[in-house]
Amino acid sequence: MTGNKPLILISNDDGITAPGIKALIEVMTELGDVLVVAPDKPQSAMGHAITINQPIRLTEVHVYPGISSYQCSGTPVDCVKLAIDKLLPRKPDLMVSGINHGSNASINVIYSGTMSAAVEAAIDGMPAIGFSLCDYAWDADFESIKPYIKKIAQETLKRGLPYGTLLNVNLPVPASGQIKGIKICRQAQAKWKEDFDQRIDPFGRNYYWMTGKFINMDKGEDTDQWALENDYVSVVPTMFDLTDHQRIGLINQWNLHEN
Amino acid sequence: MTGNKPLILISNDDGITAPGIKALIEVMTELGDVLVVAPDKPQSAMGHAITINQPIRLTEVHVYPGISSYQCSGTPVDCVKLAIDKLLPRKPDLMVSGINHGSNASINVIYSGTMSAAVEAAIDGMPAIGFSLCDYAWDADFESIKPYIKKIAQETLKRGLPYGTLLNVNLPVPASGQIKGIKICRQAQAKWKEDFDQRIDPFGRNYYWMTGKFINMDKGEDTDQWALENDYVSVVPTMFDLTDHQRIGLINQWNLHEN
Repeated sequence: MTGNKPLILISNDDGITAPGIKALIEVMTELGDVLVVAPDKPQSAMGHAITINQPIRLTEVHVYPGISSYQCSGTPVDCVKLAIDKLLPRKPDLMVSGINHGSNASINVIYSGTMSAAVEAAIDGMPAIGFSLCDYAWDADFESIKPYIKKIAQETLKRGLPYGTLLNVNLPVPASGQIKGIKICRQAQAKWKEDFDQRIDPFGRNYYWMTGKFINMDKGEDTDQWALENDYVSVVPTMFDLTDHQRIGLINQWNLHEN
Repeated sequence: MTGNKPLILISNDDGITAPGIKALIEVMTELGDVLVVAPDKPQSAMGHAITINQPIRLTEVHVYPGISSYQCSGTPVDCVKLAIDKLLPRKPDLMVSGINHGSNASINVIYSGTMSAAVEAAIDGMPAIGFSLCDYAWDADFESIKPYIKKIAQETLKRGLPYGTLLNVNLPVPASGQIKGIKICRQAQAKWKEDFDQRIDPFGRNYYWMTGKFINMDKGEDTDQWALENDYVSVVPTMFDLTDHQRIGLINQWNLHEN
């Protein structure tokens, strides 16, 4: 790596061979020197899990010609932590995670391994972005979204981000055939309604597969969900200070202070 | 379960037999009818992970006499989702998670399975509280903190919580020998500095154990970390809308809107 170009750390949660990370690497090599540290297998929906009860493997791999790449047996957050402690020559100028196969808009941000990798980088003080395409297919069209990925990454490199803030970027599969532009949004208020599929194994015991239905409770037109449904790229400034500052006063009025 | 008493859902991340959940069950049975659904093994640091690539087991167990209890092979969030879909007769009046063996104050909230179980309950619309004791020992003193657990749970049952807000409650091991009271706080700005322990296995290959050092960058006296270090119970109103609303304007000024 040369000293003049930006240094960019790349991870994801779909695994180091996923088409989404390949597309992300292709864009980032146009912007700087890249280091890839990604899970050796899919780690979707891992949230901000870390591996504390078993050892972790980290192995250099040669998946992408000329690109310094490592696969890790742990979670997306483990990947970022190992990169920081063992691999990076200096603090990167940018960390990007993805491109996830599937939406991480609205409440999905909470469950997302892609976003948690970016959150971990942001906690460590790197400008960080999670990218997701609203298409779960392995052969999704990552080519046509590359200009948006590049533009948002370039602006982030140029402007930086204040400590405590990262970006959650989701890209639509536009119903109109054409992405209309980029909207800065808030996270839509939504949830998954659980619907476990109950089955019986060959030994007569119950087991369950998690399924669910996405419920958007939010009618606002300033949300990521609205943007995506209207063929815009959504960019949500996201933070890891979970304090509900507005409610500190409310809870202070409770009868908690005298014994 | 009778219809008149509050219905309380209990989970944790240390597993259904942990002393912490036993103490929590003992307090909650004084306040209402309880249903326990907790992991069948320790699931610390699982963050908001869910199980989507393998089936989940849910088994009724008789660990606590007279208490309806189930163990689940999945994550803390899986436990809550299964309870909602398969076990609860109605929406509970309260969901409590813990008592965790170890702090979930400041940045630990991000990694915590205990808090993620409570977050999942809050997403579903239940008043929810995660309780943690700042002592990792299996034989920690849960007895002396019970009055604080009870008081906070009682107030939450009485007052409710607005949708989108839950409570992250941490209890100190007071240096002075006596807890001084309860403080409503914000999450301290802190992080873990990674320090992986690198070893070589019998086959000559590297592996890593995650270790780290907690770094508190926050000098504020209104934080959870300050409260705990000064022998107060910390209560942080916590939210799962991760939008950094204050930064929407900032990012809107970026050069992202024209093509």
